[in-house]
Amino acid sequence: MDQHDPRTKDLGFARVDVDRAARTGDPEVVYGAGKTPDQVVGILRALHEKHPERAVLATRLAPEALDVVSRALPDADIDLVARAVTLGPLPEARGTVAVVAAGTSDAPVAAEAALTVAVHGAGVDRIDDVGVAGLHRLLSVRERLEAADCLVVVAGMEGALPSVVGGLTGVPMVAVPTSVGYGASLGGIAALLAMLNSCAPGVVVVNIDNGYGAGVHAARVARQTVR
Amino acid sequence: MDQHDPRTKDLGFARVDVDRAARTGDPEVVYGAGKTPDQVVGILRALHEKHPERAVLATRLAPEALDVVSRALPDADIDLVARAVTLGPLPEARGTVAVVAAGTSDAPVAAEAALTVAVHGAGVDRIDDVGVAGLHRLLSVRERLEAADCLVVVAGMEGALPSVVGGLTGVPMVAVPTSVGYGASLGGIAALLAMLNSCAPGVVVVNIDNGYGAGVHAARVARQTVR
Amino acid sequence: MDQHDPRTKDLGFARVDVDRAARTGDPEVVYGAGKTPDQVVGILRALHEKHPERAVLATRLAPEALDVVSRALPDADIDLVARAVTLGPLPEARGTVAVVAAGTSDAPVAAEAALTVAVHGAGVDRIDDVGVAGLHRLLSVRERLEAADCLVVVAGMEGALPSVVGGLTGVPMVAVPTSVGYGASLGGIAALLAMLNSCAPGVVVVNIDNGYGAGVHAARVARQTVR
Amino acid sequence: MDQHDPRTKDLGFARVDVDRAARTGDPEVVYGAGKTPDQVVGILRALHEKHPERAVLATRLAPEALDVVSRALPDADIDLVARAVTLGPLPEARGTVAVVAAGTSDAPVAAEAALTVAVHGAGVDRIDDVGVAGLHRLLSVRERLEAADCLVVVAGMEGALPSVVGGLTGVPMVAVPTSVGYGASLGGIAALLAMLNSCAPGVVVVNIDNGYGAGVHAARVARQTVR
Amino acid sequence: MDQHDPRTKDLGFARVDVDRAARTGDPEVVYGAGKTPDQVVGILRALHEKHPERAVLATRLAPEALDVVSRALPDADIDLVARAVTLGPLPEARGTVAVVAAGTSDAPVAAEAALTVAVHGAGVDRIDDVGVAGLHRLLSVRERLEAADCLVVVAGMEGALPSVVGGLTGVPMVAVPTSVGYGASLGGIAALLAMLNSCAPGVVVVNIDNGYGAGVHAARVARQTVR
Amino acid sequence: MDQHDPRTKDLGFARVDVDRAARTGDPEVVYGAGKTPDQVVGILRALHEKHPERAVLATRLAPEALDVVSRALPDADIDLVARAVTLGPLPEARGTVAVVAAGTSDAPVAAEAALTVAVHGAGVDRIDDVGVAGLHRLLSVRERLEAADCLVVVAGMEGALPSVVGGLTGVPMVAVPTSVGYGASLGGIAALLAMLNSCAPGVVVVNIDNGYGAGVHAARVARQTVR
Amino acid sequence: MDQHDPRTKDLGFARVDVDRAARTGDPEVVYGAGKTPDQVVGILRALHEKHPERAVLATRLAPEALDVVSRALPDADIDLVARAVTLGPLPEARGTVAVVAAGTSDAPVAAEAALTVAVHGAGVDRIDDVGVAGLHRLLSVRERLEAADCLVVVAGMEGALPSVVGGLTGVPMVAVPTSVGYGASLGGIAALLAMLNSCAPGVVVVNIDNGYGAGVHAARVARQTVR
Amino acid sequence: MDQHDPRTKDLGFARVDVDRAARTGDPEVVYGAGKTPDQVVGILRALHEKHPERAVLATRLAPEALDVVSRALPDADIDLVARAVTLGPLPEARGTVAVVAAGTSDAPVAAEAALTVAVHGAGVDRIDDVGVAGLHRLLSVRERLEAADCLVVVAGMEGALPSVVGGLTGVPMVAVPTSVGYGASLGGIAALLAMLNSCAPGVVVVNIDNGYGAGVHAARVARQTVR
Repeated sequence: MDQHDPRTKDLGFARVDVDRAARTGDPEVVYGAGKTPDQVVGILRALHEKHPERAVLATRLAPEALDVVSRALPDADIDLVARAVTLGPLPEARGTVAVVAAGTSDAPVAAEAALTVAVHGAGVDRIDDVGVAGLHRLLSVRERLEAADCLVVVAGMEGALPSVVGGLTGVPMVAVPTSVGYGASLGGIAALLAMLNSCAPGVVVVNIDNGYGAGVHAARVARQTVR
Repeated sequence: MDQHDPRTKDLGFARVDVDRAARTGDPEVVYGAGKTPDQVVGILRALHEKHPERAVLATRLAPEALDVVSRALPDADIDLVARAVTLGPLPEARGTVAVVAAGTSDAPVAAEAALTVAVHGAGVDRIDDVGVAGLHRLLSVRERLEAADCLVVVAGMEGALPSVVGGLTGVPMVAVPTSVGYGASLGGIAALLAMLNSCAPGVVVVNIDNGYGAGVHAARVARQTVR
Repeated sequence: MDQHDPRTKDLGFARVDVDRAARTGDPEVVYGAGKTPDQVVGILRALHEKHPERAVLATRLAPEALDVVSRALPDADIDLVARAVTLGPLPEARGTVAVVAAGTSDAPVAAEAALTVAVHGAGVDRIDDVGVAGLHRLLSVRERLEAADCLVVVAGMEGALPSVVGGLTGVPMVAVPTSVGYGASLGGIAALLAMLNSCAPGVVVVNIDNGYGAGVHAARVARQTVR
Repeated sequence: MDQHDPRTKDLGFARVDVDRAARTGDPEVVYGAGKTPDQVVGILRALHEKHPERAVLATRLAPEALDVVSRALPDADIDLVARAVTLGPLPEARGTVAVVAAGTSDAPVAAEAALTVAVHGAGVDRIDDVGVAGLHRLLSVRERLEAADCLVVVAGMEGALPSVVGGLTGVPMVAVPTSVGYGASLGGIAALLAMLNSCAPGVVVVNIDNGYGAGVHAARVARQTVR
Repeated sequence: MDQHDPRTKDLGFARVDVDRAARTGDPEVVYGAGKTPDQVVGILRALHEKHPERAVLATRLAPEALDVVSRALPDADIDLVARAVTLGPLPEARGTVAVVAAGTSDAPVAAEAALTVAVHGAGVDRIDDVGVAGLHRLLSVRERLEAADCLVVVAGMEGALPSVVGGLTGVPMVAVPTSVGYGASLGGIAALLAMLNSCAPGVVVVNIDNGYGAGVHAARVARQTVR
Repeated sequence: MDQHDPRTKDLGFARVDVDRAARTGDPEVVYGAGKTPDQVVGILRALHEKHPERAVLATRLAPEALDVVSRALPDADIDLVARAVTLGPLPEARGTVAVVAAGTSDAPVAAEAALTVAVHGAGVDRIDDVGVAGLHRLLSVRERLEAADCLVVVAGMEGALPSVVGGLTGVPMVAVPTSVGYGASLGGIAALLAMLNSCAPGVVVVNIDNGYGAGVHAARVARQTVR
Repeated sequence: MDQHDPRTKDLGFARVDVDRAARTGDPEVVYGAGKTPDQVVGILRALHEKHPERAVLATRLAPEALDVVSRALPDADIDLVARAVTLGPLPEARGTVAVVAAGTSDAPVAAEAALTVAVHGAGVDRIDDVGVAGLHRLLSVRERLEAADCLVVVAGMEGALPSVVGGLTGVPMVAVPTSVGYGASLGGIAALLAMLNSCAPGVVVVNIDNGYGAGVHAARVARQTVR
Repeated sequence: MDQHDPRTKDLGFARVDVDRAARTGDPEVVYGAGKTPDQVVGILRALHEKHPERAVLATRLAPEALDVVSRALPDADIDLVARAVTLGPLPEARGTVAVVAAGTSDAPVAAEAALTVAVHGAGVDRIDDVGVAGLHRLLSVRERLEAADCLVVVAGMEGALPSVVGGLTGVPMVAVPTSVGYGASLGGIAALLAMLNSCAPGVVVVNIDNGYGAGVHAARVARQTVR
């Protein structure tokens, strides 16, 4: 029967892929949207048991879920801005990811990216509020951009920041469109399209508000880099 | 009967609005798409007859139409890049519009905007190939941007240039998205959405590839400006 | 380090671009959506400190934010219809912008545009409820349209008003689509597309419900106009 | 077997619904797109045989098809602008439909509507080139609008004409968006959405470029009207 | 000044077009969405004063607005299903409109259409719950369809009912797509597109859920019909 | 009159198609969205009365409706995950449908599909949480896939599971996209498009979240299969 | 190395999945779009060599490709309407699929579906030109619909035919939207959306113009059915 | 004047950014679409002159352009599948990028990616025709996937391949959607959306058919990796 496969832990409400770290180097992460707080707690516990030496992560937790999880798992670390939780010690950081955000409204997405980078074993340098309408803010941090092994660039509205950053440096970059905006921003579609059409070479993109996905990719790139 | 209205000249195939200059300050312009070369010639002649002292304009002419018009109207001036024709002397220029283009592929739209500005009575300063992936090119022309009374900023792909320009100067600006791009550029929709969501204050936008519309607005702004 | 740049004021939660007025002639404006009331108060104070002689503006404030701000900043002026706040004396008005609205439901957007014009140094003439289904209302205000240095024309649903106004006068015009409508209005997309495709020459457009952006552009045009 | 139903005439390549006039008052019409010229000829002959006393219609014929049909059916009447053909005498006209078009580029659609009206038994009054950017042209034909029993109003680009006409008169009106435009006109979608969102009461709409559908409805309304 | 125009009644918050009945045969109608209950009451009173002999109508009223209006205007008639209110006596009915609905969920839209027909002076025959998945229900009412002077056919989901009705009868028909559905119904867009592409000749369409617009057109057609 | 047709039961608020089982083999099902709990109870009773020997089904019931129905119909069986109710004994199962789900968030849709299969007379094998990012989970259940007479494959996000399953087995398969996802998932449109474009042969698709529709089709296929 | 896997035949330009029939019961099919005629010939030969006892299929062949293939493979059977080719003897037919088409323009898609059914081992009954605007044509073939083991229902424009068929019979049905239409048909999207939202229970759908996919599913259902 | 900036080489028709390699590590690349063959030759020469030691690249060349360039620059290397040209010696390869393609129709995009990787200084391993409908093909190359420093995964239609690959390995991956497909593939939008919504962690995406962009990012990642 399929339920005895040691690569899967059956919790009744979910079959946790406890083999993922063996295959891909990183354990499964709990995507909290659409799960009850109790389900989040259950999966976090199962993953932590399998990987006690290294932090496991739950993202996209609603305020109530953050509350329930923090009480059920007193050892967990709560990141209120990122709306995420980690359980267990962060791995040692190899390499550095600079997480660059255009505006203050992009903070939750940037925070999710930064926490994900740390959980996946790379160091983080946060650079906030450097939108293209005030270029001097960006130009003054060029050295920090160059010092990174990978960039995560977060922007909503017209999503122009990755194009400008990509013209300043050749460090590998992941662009994250956010849903910040209104009307013809179409919930982040405008920024997503802009980033996909960037005139700067080599810009790669993730889903709207997907700080997690950008963080995973950037951490993998940074931790395999040797300078 | 409505056909005796002196504000309209009936050519059979069209009722030319020869009253438009009296109402709006500018004569009607011939939008060439979907008209036969002979219709373009006929309307240009009627408008020139009404406004002999000032150039009248036909835009969006296919190569065949440009050819027919140049032979039928030997006094006309042909602009091959803008795919447009003028008939009659350009008006004296009041004020200056800087027409700024991101890439060489945007040249036809920028040329249409520049010619329209001239026909509508303002001076033109062309600034080409200053896309955001090489900021130094744009920063080196800041004085020319500041010296203008209105800006027309033309860009395809991710359409980021107006946001960057709008952070550098407060000169009134019209952004023109172009259909340059492929795939998720959706024929210029990506650039259009980006410009509509610009984080720079006061960016106004026209239809995709509509250099004409941007030129009309910019010329009206420039020619009523006194410095 | 980048934090010592005098062109930026670091509030911890935001890096205020206090250099913007020097670059563009107008100070930064607080876009209230996605900011806490306390953040709005903090940024307004920082901007007011830098520009005590001239009103600074916060837009898109929810009712709670309006309440908090009015108590924290008793000198602030609250505009309940525009859902906006100003702090400091309005600048002297140069030139006039006519803000024209199609229907009563467009009032909040028109109010935001009008307040923005005043904050950016131009005079305002409000013309409301002149939708195209009752043309006599519009025709009776033609002289006021002609007397303006720039027009802001606000309409939802089919967005036809700018085309009709643009056929009556050559005063530079900015069209503002609103989200008024239902079903196939697609949250204002129908009006936006209509305005982008206007058959009247020189119509320029801003994002849906973006009274602020239209106001900035129109004020800049009006205040540099000399009649 | 189903093939002996007298309400259907089996031509091998098509089963013509020769019962339609009995059910709906009007015979089937040949939609020429996607049919070979020979198929068009065959179906026209079958319909003409069934309804010799009254014109039958084929629409959307490519130039080659018009050529083939005119040679195969020398008694047919060809309308080159409408790209359509009729065979047989037009029925007596009851009532009047005014077909109103915004611009010269809308002529093919207006011509299709007008011919359809005539084939379906109502009279036609053509009013062309009365776009909203020159209102005087429209205001000068108000009496002709009022004299009609139904209106067909054809417009591309921003599709504003039906709203303006609907504010001037209460005659039942069908709006026809055309694919005239470029960029954000999205092949006529902009005009279609505008007409569906008209602020004028009682505007009904057909598919883009569907002069035929508007003509059928309008003729039915006009011919059952008694003044 | 424009405010003395007798064709407009200025209520401060709105300029009521009291001339509309003179121009179009029908008084203005109050579109309740986005208006406060007090504004609805105010405009209804102004219209009733101008047209005491004939019912005036307010549509799209939220439950609270229905409550306020019924208390402020005790003579008003409330239609809870249509979410609408009339004030004054219904005009005498000329002609008949059959309002046909596919499913029970379409009832509010059908009710709005029916009330609008009555207010605009035609008689109503309601035919509910005759969706195409049970054709016998529709076939059993063919005579009632034929007896009408105009049809309003209301359907959500795939919007197929107008095509089937249009194959059964040639009575002029207006199709109303509703927002009934989920997922790929896209809030009624699927039904709207289906109706616009109907293979039945002469189907005309209004905006999603726009029972009012369909009712106005149908009433105008019916009341000018003589049998 | 049409109301005496024995194929229809008129409940006042609805005309129940009690003839459907005779035509199609399955009784009508109550789609609960947009119906009051009392209407659901009424229609369920009418259908149960007509089909006492076989379960009738109501789907898409909100929590309140589930509550009202369970109290009004104590013999009904409530499925809280599927948000559905059955009344009467399940028919004997012929054939087997395997209902395969990619993730735990797809559970409600999978449950609706499974219950529908049972109500329509086929057996069910549930296979949950076998998303493509952990292929071993899917490969370990290949025999259960092969043993089924029809598959229902449920997935959100990128909707890749049907393509992988369709490469492993030739059992007839119905794919169900779910609205699980965010941003560019566009409420399930991404998964829907992916499934429609599957490179695996013979994948057929239903509307987003439409477990019911998939279940009906799959049960019909399974129960007519003989192995 | 992976190239020695006996389940794959490496042709240099393609790795043919010669194991597919073992896994799924049906050999790989050649999708001709985007392949050169020579590539089509090469893959057909490789598949025929592996499956000499049973026809292999190539679809979506341009006229030139049909020409090249017919000359290179003189034993192949060419279907000009379906634009497809088979090589080898058709398998014995088990069960029957009725392929039902709404209009003559849908013939190519219906032909592709019918040929695919035959290649996949089921019998075919073709029923053409039974669109919903002439219901009598459909009602006269009810017995043929009931006699089938699976239905393929092909329609363009508003895509209403599957809903009507699904109300008449409970035979499992696959709906195929076609790109027949114009304007708001959006290349078949209107029909696709309509079918996905069908009010008839159990309608499943394939991609626009995908007669092949519908044929595979229907053949699999039919050939496993025992009556 | 801005034209004397040594970071820019003015060719009249273009201002080449010869400073880009200094800023980003890679010289500018010629995007051939929308440029004349002569312009391509001119820019390639200017770039080659600046970077004689290292290959420069032109992409998206039409057949005529490939022809002109090969005659004007006999030392250039032509890649007919990638529709691209290089001039100068390839740099030494550091690290390895595996370019994985789902089907033979994706070959041009995969070839563009592979050539771009080589030009940007990394080694390439091509793995073609491993679509998810035949998983054994992919499973047999797992070791080659693991051996790479970065993956480029190219797929059209439903775009499922990156999700499956991302579940097998944690090597950093860039997904490239292609425009291969028809109907609801919407020119590659379906694959793009699927990849953006991948359930595999860390999938990053580029524009449709953008092999170049994926290649730049992947090469940068690979060449900075030390194993």
